[in-house]
Amino acid sequence: MDSTDTDNWLDQVAFNSDGLVPAIAQDAATGRVLMMAWMNRESLALTAESGKAVYWSRSRSQLWRKGESSGHEQLVEKIQLDCDGDTLVLHVTQKGGIACHTGRESCFFLTLNDGQWDTTEDVLKDPKHIYQK
Amino acid sequence: MDSTDTDNWLDQVAFNSDGLVPAIAQDAATGRVLMMAWMNRESLALTAESGKAVYWSRSRSQLWRKGESSGHEQLVEKIQLDCDGDTLVLHVTQKGGIACHTGRESCFFLTLNDGQWDTTEDVLKDPKHIYQK
Repeated sequence: MDSTDTDNWLDQVAFNSDGLVPAIAQDAATGRVLMMAWMNRESLALTAESGKAVYWSRSRSQLWRKGESSGHEQLVEKIQLDCDGDTLVLHVTQKGGIACHTGRESCFFLTLNDGQWDTTEDVLKDPKHIYQK
Repeated sequence: MDSTDTDNWLDQVAFNSDGLVPAIAQDAATGRVLMMAWMNRESLALTAESGKAVYWSRSRSQLWRKGESSGHEQLVEKIQLDCDGDTLVLHVTQKGGIACHTGRESCFFLTLNDGQWDTTEDVLKDPKHIYQK
């Protein structure tokens, strides 16, 4: 049974010409925006079914089960869609408190300040210790 | 003087092949994600210069000065960029408390619940009274 072919709610999502929709992951407790990634129909269906964020990696052209290698899974508390159906917000509990591959809580750690991007967030864990082969 | 040609910080933004970058507007006080729209280089420069959100309307192919017709401007407190430089978060004060053209606080008013998108947020103001000709 492939729910991606039958679920009406998926038909209401306006995937772009590449079959993708942006998904904003927000910490369900603090509201911090952690990252933005992309989902195709299959990854969105898998996210809803599993309760864990599954994205579509555009660079690798494959499903990206967030946290599969890092352990930094995102438990999805709520999925929201916007007025024109083309953007998602996921309210998540971020395992390990780290969403970013740089070892920071959030991918949005650069802040515009006097005409330059300042790094305004510390690395919580060295990426060398996050991604072990 | 056209700052869009000279500002180094703009060169660090990874605009996509259409010259656009997604910009997530988040309420600076509550953390609520209000909307996601797109910016080109000029609209981002104008946003930084003016302190008010200016997007690029893909449907109208023109600058979209948020709130120009509705009065629902977004005062930008902070602009953040993510680790790979291709997504922005704007921390904003939303004038009128309404970001969505439907008259709701947030564009993300549809919540996935038992396989359907439920409307989980009230209209605060009738759009007929927001957009007056």
